[in-house]
Parts: sequence; structure tokens; C-alpha cells
Amino acid sequence: MFKSIEWCGDSVRFIDQTKLPLEETYIQSHDYRVIAEAIRKLKIRGAPLIGIASAYGVAVAAIHSGEKNYQSFSHEIQNVIKEFASTRPTAVNLFWALKRMENILSVPADIDAVIKSLTGEAVRIHREDEEMCRKIGENGQKLIPQSAVILTHCNTGALATGGEGTAQSVITTAYRLGKSIKVYADETRPLLQGARLTTWELMKLGIDVTLITDSMAAFLMQQKKIDLVITGSDRIAINGDAANKIGTYSLAVNAKHHGVPFYIAAPTSTIDPSIASGKNIPIEERHADEVVQGFGKRTAPDGVKVYSPAFDITPSTLITAIITDLKVYHPPFDFSRAPSSSFKV
Amino acid sequence: MFKSIEWCGDSVRFIDQTKLPLEETYIQSHDYRVIAEAIRKLKIRGAPLIGIASAYGVAVAAIHSGEKNYQSFSHEIQNVIKEFASTRPTAVNLFWALKRMENILSVPADIDAVIKSLTGEAVRIHREDEEMCRKIGENGQKLIPQSAVILTHCNTGALATGGEGTAQSVITTAYRLGKSIKVYADETRPLLQGARLTTWELMKLGIDVTLITDSMAAFLMQQKKIDLVITGSDRIAINGDAANKIGTYSLAVNAKHHGVPFYIAAPTSTIDPSIASGKNIPIEERHADEVVQGFGKRTAPDGVKVYSPAFDITPSTLITAIITDLKVYHPPFDFSRAPSSSFKV
Repeated sequence: MFKSIEWCGDSVRFIDQTKLPLEETYIQSHDYRVIAEAIRKLKIRGAPLIGIASAYGVAVAAIHSGEKNYQSFSHEIQNVIKEFASTRPTAVNLFWALKRMENILSVPADIDAVIKSLTGEAVRIHREDEEMCRKIGENGQKLIPQSAVILTHCNTGALATGGEGTAQSVITTAYRLGKSIKVYADETRPLLQGARLTTWELMKLGIDVTLITDSMAAFLMQQKKIDLVITGSDRIAINGDAANKIGTYSLAVNAKHHGVPFYIAAPTSTIDPSIASGKNIPIEERHADEVVQGFGKRTAPDGVKVYSPAFDITPSTLITAIITDLKVYHPPFDFSRAPSSSFKV
Repeated sequence: MFKSIEWCGDSVRFIDQTKLPLEETYIQSHDYRVIAEAIRKLKIRGAPLIGIASAYGVAVAAIHSGEKNYQSFSHEIQNVIKEFASTRPTAVNLFWALKRMENILSVPADIDAVIKSLTGEAVRIHREDEEMCRKIGENGQKLIPQSAVILTHCNTGALATGGEGTAQSVITTAYRLGKSIKVYADETRPLLQGARLTTWELMKLGIDVTLITDSMAAFLMQQKKIDLVITGSDRIAINGDAANKIGTYSLAVNAKHHGVPFYIAAPTSTIDPSIASGKNIPIEERHADEVVQGFGKRTAPDGVKVYSPAFDITPSTLITAIITDLKVYHPPFDFSRAPSSSFKV
């Protein structure tokens, strides 16, 4: 297959997701600014992956800092952490990973030892995510019937994570266990992660996938062609409300209307114990250009007003179950006592 | 403003809608095949407008036939009618207009007189549509509050009709009467009629319009930003089920879920008295290329499977009212005795 991100000792190598599916291009860099910019520009995307990439970015900055004084070093790396924290506001995995890096930095020690610890922590975040993907797949596949037509949105595969994905790991695990799986992939406007990335990954895996535009999903449900919907999430509140790629909420409303199960799959690092409900989750707005000239040529009049929220909030009442690496949660959801990760933070 | 279509005595002039909004290009032709191809390629689109264009196409073919024998002439024009009937399967206005032309052709007479009658009938279909648009606007604006944020889908304006539009005529009439109107326009994938055409028209009219991707509509409703949804229709069954551009059904389900009124606006020629319910309406499937490389560059892997229905069916149970040129119909709908047009067929 491919590796969405890879640690190369003192630099990071990642696939440029904006070039897919036409080109499989890799960028290798030991400049944390290149990594931060890649997250901003969605060359690196997917809630778990941006957590991993930002941790590697901090490690890279530490390795190449050159500072000999611990206070100056710590100050420099704190600023790097702040820069990564400003790249994307919605996915909590980013802040979770940065918090882990910050915790290490907050213990003054020999600079070389701190650099080693930071690097080790970043690699650990990556490996843990890989393992969480595996467990999400294992836990989630039990919800997939022996024969299922599955609708999914955006990209939740190896490209979005450090492992085999979140929602997509559920799909691939079920497939590998011999279940008969057919997938409909929403193209996911404006940036077409479904059309560009999900179809590309599923075709590589040999899984039967059909591309549709986002607005066709409801019509498929009306025709009883969909057995279940499964998506990822960028942040889950204590009450189970889940932020995810714009369009997820519309699918959830339609799933409810048609009696189709609607599942969220995400690592426990996606659960934000500081957020009571979805209305407290900040929603990133993206630039109008992604809507009006996303395909190489302008497709709306000059000066047109555009509203482009990158995410929406699906209330817990529309969610059949939340699949994590720890277990499958059923409503009513209450994550106030749930660990924010199955791994120590 | 502009004229979507114009009769020029022995030829037809129309705006090439696939070039909008970047270029305002007109095509003038006395070759009916150019007009049929323009309908197929969506250079001419919108249920009422393809009815008008096909009638003009038949008139153009009659004028330039050269046949002196009535039987040969009639046979030739019958074939032209068949060709137009094969261009798009869903919109009933096409078949309704062609039926009117066929009715004239079926009365043997002097060829020159028949040509004159056919031409007169095509012009009449156009003028009647213009008048129907006006009446739809008048009838529909009564449903629009003094201050309203309106969500619409696809294009239902002057570009889609021979007049000021269907759903859009309701919006513009309310606006002209001094109501405070703000419009959210769905971009309408795959062919972006909302992004390319609706925003272009509304901006020309000075109406406040904001573009969104189709999947954002539900999120706006959740935020209580939408007062009502209004769309056109390509065919309405006796029970009120309505076919319209793909994505309409998803909006209707979401409108129901959020308690937002959902209106259909269409001329009575859109009502098909031969169709009992929506499940009997044929749904056109479009080519995969419109989804995977609609805008200049390919956005999905080579060989990806695509499902692309051009329309969907909104069941009458989700429709708050159907606005026509004759009157506003409220549920339960029963068009078994309704005239298929306010004008004699």
C-alpha cells in the first residue's frame, strides 16, 4: 500500500493528499513550518493524522532547534506548539497530541534528553494511533452484517490516520473477514476527499466502491440501497454530539428518516472531556475559493458571497452507536467518565 | 437582463448555459440538430425552457424542411419530434410541448400553412410560459413572509424558463414587492447550476445571495437560518410526488426534520395526469464524467464506478404546498382532475 506519514529519524515524509488521485507525491522535510503549512493546506488531513503530524512537527523543530539554553529551547518549542495549534480549530486530536508533547517539554532536563523524549512521544502517538485503528476495526466490524451496502462520507482511511483508518478500518476489517461489502462514497464537497481519496484507497484494497455526489445519498436511502452509514469524527462532546466533515449531519438526518443505522467511528482521543455538548465545538470556516474554484476553473460569478463551514455537528440523538478503540458505546452517551484515550495521556 | 431563448423568424437564438458565469455566449441556429444537441448537453436546460426550445426546434425543422409532399413532410417532422423526445427523459414539459406540436402536424393541410401553425404554436408556448412564470410569482409571493431567508436548489430562473422563472419568480416577485429577501443557493452538484446560474441571475437582480455546497443546507437549517425552502419541479404526479434536480429530496427530508416549510413552484404543464405517483417517473442517469471531471480536471481515480441520477423524487408528504400559475395547492394533493395546464392543450 502506501504510508500517509513516516518518521525518518530527523525528518518527516508524508503523501501530499491534495495531489491525489492523479499523482502519488511524497514530501520529506525537516522544517516544521512545511508540516504546519501542509496541515493548513490539507496536504495532511484527517483528525488522527493531523495529531500525529503535529507531534512529528514538534519533534522536528526540537531536533533542529540548535538552542543550548533550556529556557530558550523550551520557549522556542512552545511557540512551535502554538503554531501547530493554530492550523485547524475543530479536530481535537491535534490539541490532544500537542498537549502530550507539551507535557514532556514542561519537565526541565538536559536538552538532548528532552529532544529524545519528544521524538519518542511523537513516534508513540503514531504507533498508538495505528493500534487504535486496528481496535476500532475489530470492535466495529461486529456491527456490520454478513452482507452490507455501506455509505460513507469524506475520507477515514489510511490517509486520515496513522493506521488503517477509523470508519474505513471498520469496513476493511469486515471485508477481510469475508463479509460481502459494497461501499457508496460521498464525493464530499468542497474538497472532494471522498472522490479523490476514499475511492482511491478502497480501489487499491479491492473493495467494491461507487462514487456519488453528496446530495444523492438521500435518494439511495429512499431506494433502500443503504444498510448503514458510517463516518469518522473530529471531536466528540461528553453527551455524544459529534463534529465531522460538513455533510455528515445531513446524512444523519436522512438516516434517521429512513431507519438506517448511523455509526461514528473514532479513536478515544477524539472524545473531548472538556466539552459538554456539540454547540461548544468551534467550527472552522474555509476560504470561498475552495467552493468557487476547487476544480481548476472558476465555477461561480466573481464577488459571489460564500459560506463554507468545514464541519457540522451531529447531535447524539441521531447516532446509533459510537465505535472506539476501547468499545462500542450505545446511547444515551455519557463520556464524562470515559478516558479520553485508552492510552495514558 | 438577458434572454435565455429568442425566436428570430426562422432561427433560434439561445444563451449557452454551460459557459456561464464566465462567458455570456449566444448561439443562433436554424438547424434543429444543434438545438437538440444543446438540450442533451445542457446548454439549454430547465424543464420549461427545454419544452420551449424543443417546440422552436420543431418549427425550425419545418421551416427548413424543403419537402413539398405533405406525407413526407409530416414523416420528417414526426422524426424530428421523436429526436427531441429522446433528449431528456424526466421533464414532462418537453413531452407536453412536443405533443402540442404533434397535434398541429396531425391535421393534414397545405405545408406552408402547417409551418405557419407550427411556428405560431411554438411562439405561443413561449409566451404562455412567460405568463405562467408571472402568475407563479404572484401566487407564490403570498407565502413569503415580509422578511425571509430562502434556500433554493438548482436554477429555476429566467435561464430555466421562457419568463422570469418558477421558484425564482416567487423570490423575485416578493423582492420587487419590497420584502426583505436573503437567498442561500445550493451549488447543485454535479453540474453546479446553483453556483453558476442562480447566483449569476440573483446578483444581476440585486438580490442578496450566498452560495453553499449542497451538503451545508442541513447545517443551516439546524442553526435556524432558513425560513423556507423553494425549488422547481420537472414532473409532478397526480398524488403530488415531484421529480426535481438530484438533491431536492434530501432538502425536503431535512426541511421536514427541522420544521421548515418546503415549497415546489412549477407551471401546470409540469403536472403529468398520466402518472399516479412518483415511482412511475423515469429518472435520467447522467454520464460519470460529469461527476469525475466536470470542471476541467479529473477528481477521481480512473475507472471508478459512478452512480449519477439527475433527478430524485420528493414524496408529496414532505411538500408544504405546490405553487402553480393557476393556484397554490395544499395537501392532500390530487391532480387527477387538475388541468395539465391553465392554457388549452
